[in-house]
Amino acid sequence: MEGHQVQALYDFTGEPGTAELSINAGQILTVIRANVGDGWCEGVNQSGKSGLFPAAYVQPVDPNASAPPMTGSTTSSQQGTGDYWDDDWDDDSEAGHDTPAPVNQQQHHLQQAVQPSSQPVYPDYADSISTHTVHSVISERPISNVPKKNTKFSTLIKSGEDSFLMGTKIVVVPDNERVFIEENEERRCVWVPAIDTYNCVVTSPKKESKLKGLKSFIVYQLTPTFNNIQVSRRYKHFDWLHERLEEKYCFIPIPPLPDKQISGRYEEQFIEHRRTQLQEFVDYVCRHPVLCRSRVWEHFMTCTDEKRWKAGKRQAEKDELLGVNYFNVLQCPDTPLDPVKVDIENDAFAKFINGLDPVVKNFMAMAVDQSKKHQVLYKREFQKIAQSFTSLGFALDADDNSRGILNSALKVTGDAYNEIGKLYEEQPKFDWEPLGDKFHIYRGIISSFPDVISIHKSAVQKRKDSERLVSEHKMEPQQLRELSHRTDVIARALMAEETHFQMEREVHIKQAMKNHLTEQIAFYKKIVNKLQEALNAYDG
Amino acid sequence: MEGHQVQALYDFTGEPGTAELSINAGQILTVIRANVGDGWCEGVNQSGKSGLFPAAYVQPVDPNASAPPMTGSTTSSQQGTGDYWDDDWDDDSEAGHDTPAPVNQQQHHLQQAVQPSSQPVYPDYADSISTHTVHSVISERPISNVPKKNTKFSTLIKSGEDSFLMGTKIVVVPDNERVFIEENEERRCVWVPAIDTYNCVVTSPKKESKLKGLKSFIVYQLTPTFNNIQVSRRYKHFDWLHERLEEKYCFIPIPPLPDKQISGRYEEQFIEHRRTQLQEFVDYVCRHPVLCRSRVWEHFMTCTDEKRWKAGKRQAEKDELLGVNYFNVLQCPDTPLDPVKVDIENDAFAKFINGLDPVVKNFMAMAVDQSKKHQVLYKREFQKIAQSFTSLGFALDADDNSRGILNSALKVTGDAYNEIGKLYEEQPKFDWEPLGDKFHIYRGIISSFPDVISIHKSAVQKRKDSERLVSEHKMEPQQLRELSHRTDVIARALMAEETHFQMEREVHIKQAMKNHLTEQIAFYKKIVNKLQEALNAYDG
Repeated sequence: MEGHQVQALYDFTGEPGTAELSINAGQILTVIRANVGDGWCEGVNQSGKSGLFPAAYVQPVDPNASAPPMTGSTTSSQQGTGDYWDDDWDDDSEAGHDTPAPVNQQQHHLQQAVQPSSQPVYPDYADSISTHTVHSVISERPISNVPKKNTKFSTLIKSGEDSFLMGTKIVVVPDNERVFIEENEERRCVWVPAIDTYNCVVTSPKKESKLKGLKSFIVYQLTPTFNNIQVSRRYKHFDWLHERLEEKYCFIPIPPLPDKQISGRYEEQFIEHRRTQLQEFVDYVCRHPVLCRSRVWEHFMTCTDEKRWKAGKRQAEKDELLGVNYFNVLQCPDTPLDPVKVDIENDAFAKFINGLDPVVKNFMAMAVDQSKKHQVLYKREFQKIAQSFTSLGFALDADDNSRGILNSALKVTGDAYNEIGKLYEEQPKFDWEPLGDKFHIYRGIISSFPDVISIHKSAVQKRKDSERLVSEHKMEPQQLRELSHRTDVIARALMAEETHFQMEREVHIKQAMKNHLTEQIAFYKKIVNKLQEALNAYDG
Repeated sequence: MEGHQVQALYDFTGEPGTAELSINAGQILTVIRANVGDGWCEGVNQSGKSGLFPAAYVQPVDPNASAPPMTGSTTSSQQGTGDYWDDDWDDDSEAGHDTPAPVNQQQHHLQQAVQPSSQPVYPDYADSISTHTVHSVISERPISNVPKKNTKFSTLIKSGEDSFLMGTKIVVVPDNERVFIEENEERRCVWVPAIDTYNCVVTSPKKESKLKGLKSFIVYQLTPTFNNIQVSRRYKHFDWLHERLEEKYCFIPIPPLPDKQISGRYEEQFIEHRRTQLQEFVDYVCRHPVLCRSRVWEHFMTCTDEKRWKAGKRQAEKDELLGVNYFNVLQCPDTPLDPVKVDIENDAFAKFINGLDPVVKNFMAMAVDQSKKHQVLYKREFQKIAQSFTSLGFALDADDNSRGILNSALKVTGDAYNEIGKLYEEQPKFDWEPLGDKFHIYRGIISSFPDVISIHKSAVQKRKDSERLVSEHKMEPQQLRELSHRTDVIARALMAEETHFQMEREVHIKQAMKNHLTEQIAFYKKIVNKLQEALNAYDG
């Protein structure tokens, strides 16, 4: 397809500072390289600007021309996911979660009964899984090669909500899948905390290759604290896990994975940074009282055997206790909620989230911007200062009559400013970068909340419709009571997530700010010390 | 002349960061405003770039068109300098030393005898002045409206050098004008230091106006420590003094005045900065063993009576003991110098100065650049950081359930970063600006040295020529001996200035560097304190 023209199907906003090219739907582009890897395409727009954009976002201008080639995970998804854990097709798949969700396998009909897994693989839950029966609601899921952007499949969810609210599906929930919501001392809904908390450390990223070095990838080591057994995972595995969590927990904002990055992907600095970003993701999951107990997550962080891997993967992809169905697992207090109060509270929360969203985006952009400025701009400024002092020291050396303290002290000063420049270069990984990573997580959480809120909103609307039906004697009061209770379940799930998000802020954002300031203080103290050393040089 | 085209006669390099426009000889420009003030013209070049350039650097393309109007001090110079101390013509004359030297009064003929002043005005030197007789050598001084750039009239000096070397002029030097050069312990030539050293502080610049506020100017207060009597001086007075020193001391690099500045001239910050720059100039003069005893300088810093002012001004402008003539005042050891050794030393010094010149220029540019970056760029960066923290604090307030320590601590952090931004804005006046001012002085000194060196070089050439003449019996050996002694006087003057310059560096540049680093340390410590306050806020 090289040299041919394509037309953009969708808007795509390139990440600033990368090779990505922003494109607008309808725009005509000329393809330079059709397959850069990972489903990316290199092209030039009509203003002459070139860059990378997702191949799936464009179509050939001539409809008879060949379609953009499916590359990387995209191809795989369409072949079925049976080889997901193989490395054959995804040598380049470090590049972010633009992998479309595996689609074919989820084309079940509404109400289609799920066959018990013939080979249960989750170590702890195997028995219970093998006996449960769930009716899938996934029917209207759009088939698309378009990199998804954290949509939480709101269309899908709304379509299935009715069946949960109306109780038209028979859902058997195994005991150990049940999730409890209670009220705390302040009468706020909270997830009942997990009894055994644990951490999971992400360590030692290393580059591995196969096919005689033709294909290479990074492997990260995960070690949960409860068993201390290390497992190796690649970015694509995280990506797969992320999709499973997204589709299973429609009422929980899933923390985002690190963004894809095309250029310099295997540089040491990038890999180490990605490790810390993955650690942030893992930490959030481990802290979450529902996610930390997720079977797919447990499989992900504990399974060491390849065969069990593949079986577990298939199992997870067949899991029908997901999306709106998952509301069936929630066990809440029976007391009915005051609908007016809930409405007011949720409206306030929605407003809060809407107001927070741009602020957090801006905050993250600021932190990323500061990181870059420290590493490039400020470092360069201090190098220039250093150069001026050093040059002056050497220029004064040319006078034979004055080779005293001044000349050498000037060079020491030059060295000090140079070292300060290096401090600026190295510093972001201690302050602005971790802060940016932290806010990357919360930015994702916040941007997922509107979908969660809208699930509740449509449930409330359904209840209002049903109230009208009851008043018109078109529905039984008992049916409305049950529907009302189920609406309260959704409300309580939302409120429990709100409470969790609040705790996250009060504990973890606060801690992040303290870490940031502590590192900033240490940084400026180091500068003071460098300058002090330089000053001392003037007194010999 | 507005709207007309003019052609540049000379190259002019605009100061970066000002409204000045760089022009090249031969370039055609269109005049926007012919008289912006101070001899500046506003115009646009053929690339469409507009800015200010000296009116005297251009001529009308049509030779019949009117010449660029003489403005400000230029006009005055041509009218004669009798009203120099009046304020009638120079309301705008803060704008730097681009004033051409008063010319008419110096068009004396070679060998023209000077009449004793009828009205001696220098308090201490009056008697001696009234009796001395000097022959002027100023004949080939170019008449020009072109703002001079520290040329030290090298053409003039070379033309007059012969008469000093050949002893063809009768110069009577009053006893108290005599300047002594001796050899120090290291056998290096030094100016015999002044017995009474003193300082002179420049304080309290204030804006004054006349003609009902139509014309305004800044008055600086000077107070010498030896009498503690304050005198008021304007920039134009400094400018006049500077010219007198330049023409009198051809063998002493005169420290430059602060550069002219067109825009924002009367802003408080600019005025205070100019005061510190003038203080640097005054300090250098006070420290210099020859300049500090200069009669015109003493008149400048002590005269409080307007009538004596004007008389003293006329006196100084009539002073004939200047330029090459001034070598007659130098009293040196009689021992002849080794010409080979002197040549080697001076070549080394010339090389040193040539190497130092671009380095010092670069250093000063760096300091000025850092000043600006602190005041604008870095300040803005910290404001952006502050804004992000503050906005986050306020956005979190929207959640009624969590108005805790975090929100207020975030706002405290925002405030802290804002205050750090302010520190960045204010800091340059403590570190980079004084360093820049210091290097402005030394840049001027260094750029004057080549002229001083060339005076000596041409004297050496004259001696070589005379040696040939003696060998050809065309000159008396006695004449050569006298010429050789006078060449040694010039060599010793140069060497004494070298020694002085070296001491300046070792004492004053060293001190400037120490001050700079001390202020930098204080600055970063203040940042640490601000951050520490913010950190404390997270623990309530």
